[in-house]
Amino acid sequence: MSDRLFFGGDYNPEQWPSSVWASDVELMRQASVNLVTVGVFSWSRLQPTPDTFDFGWLDTVLDGLHEAGIGVCLATPTASPPPWFTRRYPDSMPVTRDGVRLTHGSRDTYCVNAPAYRAASVRIASELATRYGTHPALQLWHVHNEYGTWCFCSHCAVEFRAWLETRYSTVEALNDAWSTDFWSQRYAGWDEIEPPRATQYLRNPAQELDYRRFMSDSLLRGYLEQKTVLSGRVPVTTNFVLGDWVPVDHARWSAHVDLVAIDDYPPDLAGRAFSADRARGWARAAGHPDGRWLLMEHAPGYTHTSSGSSSGLRRLADSLSTVASVYLDRGATGIMYFQWRASQGGAEQWHPALVGYSSAVFSEAVELGASLATRTPSVASADVAVVYDEESMWAWQSPHLPTRVDYTSLVQSWHAALSSPAGSGSSGGQLVDVIPVGASLEGYRLVVVPALYLMSAAAHEWLRTFTGHLVITAGTGLVDEHARTTPDSLADLIGATIAERNFSPWHDTVVPTEAGPRPNVTYLPSLDVVPLDDIW
Amino acid sequence: MSDRLFFGGDYNPEQWPSSVWASDVELMRQASVNLVTVGVFSWSRLQPTPDTFDFGWLDTVLDGLHEAGIGVCLATPTASPPPWFTRRYPDSMPVTRDGVRLTHGSRDTYCVNAPAYRAASVRIASELATRYGTHPALQLWHVHNEYGTWCFCSHCAVEFRAWLETRYSTVEALNDAWSTDFWSQRYAGWDEIEPPRATQYLRNPAQELDYRRFMSDSLLRGYLEQKTVLSGRVPVTTNFVLGDWVPVDHARWSAHVDLVAIDDYPPDLAGRAFSADRARGWARAAGHPDGRWLLMEHAPGYTHTSSGSSSGLRRLADSLSTVASVYLDRGATGIMYFQWRASQGGAEQWHPALVGYSSAVFSEAVELGASLATRTPSVASADVAVVYDEESMWAWQSPHLPTRVDYTSLVQSWHAALSSPAGSGSSGGQLVDVIPVGASLEGYRLVVVPALYLMSAAAHEWLRTFTGHLVITAGTGLVDEHARTTPDSLADLIGATIAERNFSPWHDTVVPTEAGPRPNVTYLPSLDVVPLDDIW
Amino acid sequence: MSDRLFFGGDYNPEQWPSSVWASDVELMRQASVNLVTVGVFSWSRLQPTPDTFDFGWLDTVLDGLHEAGIGVCLATPTASPPPWFTRRYPDSMPVTRDGVRLTHGSRDTYCVNAPAYRAASVRIASELATRYGTHPALQLWHVHNEYGTWCFCSHCAVEFRAWLETRYSTVEALNDAWSTDFWSQRYAGWDEIEPPRATQYLRNPAQELDYRRFMSDSLLRGYLEQKTVLSGRVPVTTNFVLGDWVPVDHARWSAHVDLVAIDDYPPDLAGRAFSADRARGWARAAGHPDGRWLLMEHAPGYTHTSSGSSSGLRRLADSLSTVASVYLDRGATGIMYFQWRASQGGAEQWHPALVGYSSAVFSEAVELGASLATRTPSVASADVAVVYDEESMWAWQSPHLPTRVDYTSLVQSWHAALSSPAGSGSSGGQLVDVIPVGASLEGYRLVVVPALYLMSAAAHEWLRTFTGHLVITAGTGLVDEHARTTPDSLADLIGATIAERNFSPWHDTVVPTEAGPRPNVTYLPSLDVVPLDDIW
Repeated sequence: MSDRLFFGGDYNPEQWPSSVWASDVELMRQASVNLVTVGVFSWSRLQPTPDTFDFGWLDTVLDGLHEAGIGVCLATPTASPPPWFTRRYPDSMPVTRDGVRLTHGSRDTYCVNAPAYRAASVRIASELATRYGTHPALQLWHVHNEYGTWCFCSHCAVEFRAWLETRYSTVEALNDAWSTDFWSQRYAGWDEIEPPRATQYLRNPAQELDYRRFMSDSLLRGYLEQKTVLSGRVPVTTNFVLGDWVPVDHARWSAHVDLVAIDDYPPDLAGRAFSADRARGWARAAGHPDGRWLLMEHAPGYTHTSSGSSSGLRRLADSLSTVASVYLDRGATGIMYFQWRASQGGAEQWHPALVGYSSAVFSEAVELGASLATRTPSVASADVAVVYDEESMWAWQSPHLPTRVDYTSLVQSWHAALSSPAGSGSSGGQLVDVIPVGASLEGYRLVVVPALYLMSAAAHEWLRTFTGHLVITAGTGLVDEHARTTPDSLADLIGATIAERNFSPWHDTVVPTEAGPRPNVTYLPSLDVVPLDDIW
Repeated sequence: MSDRLFFGGDYNPEQWPSSVWASDVELMRQASVNLVTVGVFSWSRLQPTPDTFDFGWLDTVLDGLHEAGIGVCLATPTASPPPWFTRRYPDSMPVTRDGVRLTHGSRDTYCVNAPAYRAASVRIASELATRYGTHPALQLWHVHNEYGTWCFCSHCAVEFRAWLETRYSTVEALNDAWSTDFWSQRYAGWDEIEPPRATQYLRNPAQELDYRRFMSDSLLRGYLEQKTVLSGRVPVTTNFVLGDWVPVDHARWSAHVDLVAIDDYPPDLAGRAFSADRARGWARAAGHPDGRWLLMEHAPGYTHTSSGSSSGLRRLADSLSTVASVYLDRGATGIMYFQWRASQGGAEQWHPALVGYSSAVFSEAVELGASLATRTPSVASADVAVVYDEESMWAWQSPHLPTRVDYTSLVQSWHAALSSPAGSGSSGGQLVDVIPVGASLEGYRLVVVPALYLMSAAAHEWLRTFTGHLVITAGTGLVDEHARTTPDSLADLIGATIAERNFSPWHDTVVPTEAGPRPNVTYLPSLDVVPLDDIW
Repeated sequence: MSDRLFFGGDYNPEQWPSSVWASDVELMRQASVNLVTVGVFSWSRLQPTPDTFDFGWLDTVLDGLHEAGIGVCLATPTASPPPWFTRRYPDSMPVTRDGVRLTHGSRDTYCVNAPAYRAASVRIASELATRYGTHPALQLWHVHNEYGTWCFCSHCAVEFRAWLETRYSTVEALNDAWSTDFWSQRYAGWDEIEPPRATQYLRNPAQELDYRRFMSDSLLRGYLEQKTVLSGRVPVTTNFVLGDWVPVDHARWSAHVDLVAIDDYPPDLAGRAFSADRARGWARAAGHPDGRWLLMEHAPGYTHTSSGSSSGLRRLADSLSTVASVYLDRGATGIMYFQWRASQGGAEQWHPALVGYSSAVFSEAVELGASLATRTPSVASADVAVVYDEESMWAWQSPHLPTRVDYTSLVQSWHAALSSPAGSGSSGGQLVDVIPVGASLEGYRLVVVPALYLMSAAAHEWLRTFTGHLVITAGTGLVDEHARTTPDSLADLIGATIAERNFSPWHDTVVPTEAGPRPNVTYLPSLDVVPLDDIW
């Protein structure tokens, strides 16, 4: 990647007559835009019928951008198959837990395990690779958009069984991992296993967890099938969407993208900082020591709020530059928005945009663009880290738990507290790394592990090797990777056992072991975020 | 229509043994009842099997009423097909967005686009027309009941495509109107278009809007098919039900009823006044200059409340006469209740009624009936109007908007404020018209247009012709009839552009145009209902 | 039954390696456990494939328990069919009102009316009866678990029609009972009748009520089919689950169990007392004059709370002994927990347990067990009773009512108030019976009837025979057993008619009859729970 900072956003010229395109390019130049994401939702224009392609308009767009010195992040359009695809392959539409087969009319209407969808995706990606792989405007391949679509159809059932067979080898091993003797769920054969569809009452938490891992791997396979045909001159990535509903393990995926890229729509600066630090943590753990990552999407000038009686889109008090600084200070290699020009119609016509939404916002963009043109990406590093694990986030969502814990919010609260030690209250504060399980712990003087519910034996081993100060909170180490309880598994690490738990509010009754606590480890028996002044 | 005031209500004698009927007639005479609605839910009695009819009991009822000098508003029973209809034509049952096919066991279980339903409806209407068209008791035909049933089945899909083809002629025009380039929704042919069924995420707002228009037109076709066979000696109408969920454009329908009739179940007098003024507005806009309309249903003596911990049916503090005055002062030609005699069983057995519910209520009815017998309908007119548009109400319901606006409540608040200028607080106050888009503006000194989100070019033109004082609020003129944004479309009318919107709470930043504001137009940049003292 | 007190709980050894079993038995002896429930969810282990059985492990478990002097309550595992059952008989899976067919992956995935399910249930029950009917450890047969599974499938439709034909003989009688002339629901034949599946709007309350009775009877038939093959040396029972959603009429079922047994999970002691008194009332009304019953399940040491921001499992302030006293003082013949040893995995791995959850809880259990070994069951009796009727509870759930009444909570409030007269506030207070409709009223000086909405003619007659003091509250006697209104049906009992009802809050306007009130009857015109000091 270049050492420039990227500046730009999603650009959907097909929504506008070609007469607007020249004006777009002119405005982009005014704003010092140097990268635009094109084609994210263009499938129905690029392939208007099953057997015809139309690239002419895209040729014109890319050539025009190139002439103006604007780079292109070219997307494959597979997140939104065209209407003809539904008509021809209804079995490729996603199915809910309740068995409702969805249809087109929105976006993300596909089953990633449907053979016809996989074939059609590779086909359109190949066509794009062939036509544009050597286009001089091309800077980055952007596969798909915000991977995250669940499905529970019969294609998924078939693939799930195969995935499980690979993972467990024998049905007996699966029965053991899933604790199927509870509620008479013991399987006699692979073909008896179904996705976790609508059932009577609480589901098996291990099945639920494995299905989410399977969805993540299914989507990853889809990504990799496209990446294979795209790889060449420029890096390949996809834009991570961060949400509790997303069945994607981003730490695991990060090893497969050439540049970690995220979309980010939080309501405040603290949330942006937390997203940025997560992205950097994934990038570094995936082997990019500079920890650089790309902000692929965020909303210019507005945020969604829901406070009391009034909720909706609100104009930000912070300028575009202030917001961008949060990301840039944390390793972002570019600041990109959704979207360049506000749509005239469609479901996101009221989504904030750089052009056509607010003249003040465009002015701020011009100012920010000019400033970025003189800067290079920074390398951010910290000596304090907090652990964030999406598998634990998934596991905390299960309705069978003794209390509700909003894991992501809890980790974010720790992140904010560590960023502003001694109650400074500054949203700037000191830099804090957010790291996935298994990341290198070298160089940290303090690592905080909030409510890391799910811990494999390897995760336990990983923490035991840490020689800096380790703070572990209640809710950590309760189950193994199969969601089986692991009582006392933390005992040698924290030098204590939990004699009793009160879950509402959470308070552990801790009994020291004979060996007693290790000097560098603190166990916090509640879920409260407390000052760590004594450790500091 | 006669110049008498109608007084009566829904009468369902089939729910009672014939021994009760004579008592009913006697009590009706006591209460000076002169019109009762019969047959609304009688299909399973009138046509007990697909091939048999039984009119004997209805003959007896109508003859008895006539002998007592009581007129009949005779309903076609098509709002509730009998169980045998479901068994014979399961494809005629309505289907939800999720694909759930409903079944009988309630009411309104039909798809208005199902051929078998349409045929069966015309057949039973024809039988009634033949048998009772010349009956001396007959005063009014009442088609169906509270038209408003949604469906998303495959019959609807077929008809929706035909409706769209009529509307747009070419798929290209539809793609343009629906902005289908957003999210890759571009259609290559009519057969790719589906009703807005369950999909992954936000729907296309233009598709949603057109589907609601299509449902309105489908239901209207059903009404007209029956009206054709009924038309003759007496007027034909149907009872409008006013609710945000109803897929019926009542302003458009009003041209097709001989007398606008509404059902009305608001919790307070202000709500009743607003309903009455809407009904008069529709009647007048549809070509009835006296603005007369009929209150076909309301609940005697009780209202539903939901305040804090207690919710449910509550006895009204206001007498039946006080309530009736609100309607009569606003052009009602009759005061009718649901229902005459409380049902012994069924889902509305606890619905208030004139007989068998509360002796005090019946006493009030006797008093009101006697008083009405000496009065004639009044002609109500006002020189102030507020605009209410059901298409904008539909459009405001879309989840894709930048904030939630309860459009109907907002217009009602303006209606209430205009009725009680200078904070008089009186619920009586001055009369205010509520008018649909396109109604004559002649004679008004003040017209208020609250949050008229959706405005076609014709609607813009309509407002430009007004020479009285025009007050337009934020949220007006944001999109055209296809839900496409129309920035600055109000500029020449309000003499300003909106540089920026803050949606939570709503506040527009207004920048005057060079031409500047027109002297008779005021633009309010928020959704607050404010006193218009200076204009008064 | 023996005159010992039972002490123990659900024991699921199949979830643990056999190496743990000896330790279990040793710990049970420490805690003086004398009865454990085995096999509740063992179907997939007992019958791993359609044609093979594996009883070896259960032989070992039962023999081991017997050697240690621990009795066994042996369950049939029919509440949770194994995965192979779904695969082989998909038509035996339950279907929701919306038509969603559920699948395995939880528990309670069966349709009790599916022929294959009925056959498979009798088969596994017969196998268990043959193998263990004479086992010396066997003390009690425990059929199924917490009967309560709804279904709306086509098997149910067929059986529903047959059940209705038995109940009503003619379709005409059903039409009359169901008031089908409302909303055109009149049936011409049995085959037109469906379960109350998804429909457009409010359902017919009589159909809904009959369907719930039918579900209760369907489940009862399933129970009796198993009981027939199990009956022999030891009593047969099932564990009642008390919840508003349960389609089981426990008063009616009690006649068919040899020992009334309940599961009980309330948040507080008052709730436990109310459950216990209900169980005793059912037992006595079913012909067990000592009123003894068994607490088959409750949670050791923890309860679920949901107060304000914190909700979840909370450690009880009361000891196991304090909790047990509430039940023992009210006729319990045993104190059993769910479950003995906390599960490692599965949906209830965080459910409290005697072993492996909290060492303090186990210590309390040891103490309680020792104390129980020296006691015998007590016979509890009271001279004050409150009436509780599950059919009225069902009827109060209908959305068509003029206000929402939480009937069970209301009766519980009366129960609590009567237990602590004169505002003593003591949760102990005096013993109060909770009796079903039709129970013997002999010996009571006071009977309170709160909001007994549904009253057949027999229920009216039953109350008329009572010579003690009778307190009847508003909401009583509104409909008959077919949910048809019965105005003035209470008139001769309370010596008054209800001229008018205000439902929000509820207040009846009472008009004395000429005969006037009976001296021993008090009518309370609201739903408030008031002190009865004057009656005391």
